[in-house]
Amino acid sequence: MSHEQHQELIKKLHECAVACNHCYDACLKEEDMKMMADCIRLDRECADICSYLEHALSRNTPFVSELASVCAKICEACGNECKKHDHEHCQECADACFKCAEACKTVA
Amino acid sequence: MSHEQHQELIKKLHECAVACNHCYDACLKEEDMKMMADCIRLDRECADICSYLEHALSRNTPFVSELASVCAKICEACGNECKKHDHEHCQECADACFKCAEACKTVA
Amino acid sequence: MSHEQHQELIKKLHECAVACNHCYDACLKEEDMKMMADCIRLDRECADICSYLEHALSRNTPFVSELASVCAKICEACGNECKKHDHEHCQECADACFKCAEACKTVA
Amino acid sequence: MSHEQHQELIKKLHECAVACNHCYDACLKEEDMKMMADCIRLDRECADICSYLEHALSRNTPFVSELASVCAKICEACGNECKKHDHEHCQECADACFKCAEACKTVA
Repeated sequence: MSHEQHQELIKKLHECAVACNHCYDACLKEEDMKMMADCIRLDRECADICSYLEHALSRNTPFVSELASVCAKICEACGNECKKHDHEHCQECADACFKCAEACKTVA
Repeated sequence: MSHEQHQELIKKLHECAVACNHCYDACLKEEDMKMMADCIRLDRECADICSYLEHALSRNTPFVSELASVCAKICEACGNECKKHDHEHCQECADACFKCAEACKTVA
Repeated sequence: MSHEQHQELIKKLHECAVACNHCYDACLKEEDMKMMADCIRLDRECADICSYLEHALSRNTPFVSELASVCAKICEACGNECKKHDHEHCQECADACFKCAEACKTVA
Repeated sequence: MSHEQHQELIKKLHECAVACNHCYDACLKEEDMKMMADCIRLDRECADICSYLEHALSRNTPFVSELASVCAKICEACGNECKKHDHEHCQECADACFKCAEACKTVA
């Protein structure tokens, strides 16, 4: 069953989506919010594609490799932006993004 | 942090979305597929709203109770349909749906 | 056919989702971005639920009234926030939100 | 503004998502539903990615070409499946899919 084959990837996608959404929420509450504009934007892009792919894997989509390839790219872009900021939520998000990008590449 | 407050609900939503998507995929492969039409339809509705709410909770949506109330209703409708069918994926899906509906009601 | 019955609502939902997403993008570029935090957050909530409902209507979801009722509430909250800001994108977004909320209420 | 640059593509994505969702709904009501299993599955995949990209374009996503490239591929797969079936909803869906695939390729 597809969703069992991809269990580890589904877990990483879920963790990355949650981390990105939490980082997005936390960035919107930061005093230096203006500096976080790209982070907010990329958090949303990354959370949305991870959630999409997680969902698509669990319904056995025929387009795993194509979607995982795009997802890896977006995770890396988000991780690279988050890495620049010292906020704990950004550092944790960067970590989740890079782990998810690696997991995506194994099926891309 | 909202996504930590709602950790148990996020887990139930995730499990329900995965179960519904797996049931949808499995129904599309059944010999008696015509009998599964409502199940296929409701599996998609339920997976989509659970995935939506899971995602919305993790970004700290201000609309938790409204969304959880709709989600509970859709989970119950899907669980009631799945319960009618003997396929293991349907029975497992019904179980995940009812558990998720209960969890939704605690915040609705 | 459901998506034809609901053609006018689908149009309003589409226009509202586009307006909210444009306002979100524009807010992330404003100098006074810190003041726009709630607007950014609500733009995303509103765009997401409008897009969800538009999509659900076009697949003939059995949950029209429940989803439209939540959507109306989110559109109103977003419209009320956008209305407070003088940016043209906020005023246009408020307008789209209120029109969409009205359309949602006709089926809720 | 991005969503104005991409107005024609957003229109094609919207029309394709609506056609796919309508075809999905209609397939679930066909007597020969078993023959429509791949069509149902691909209609959902295609509607979901078109809706995703439409939404992403309107928020000025930085990942237009990557997402449009995946979307073009999924639209073609769905169009090729729908083309095989004589139902009017399948033929109309195939048409919308191929037009959308072409539009996606112009930005991919």
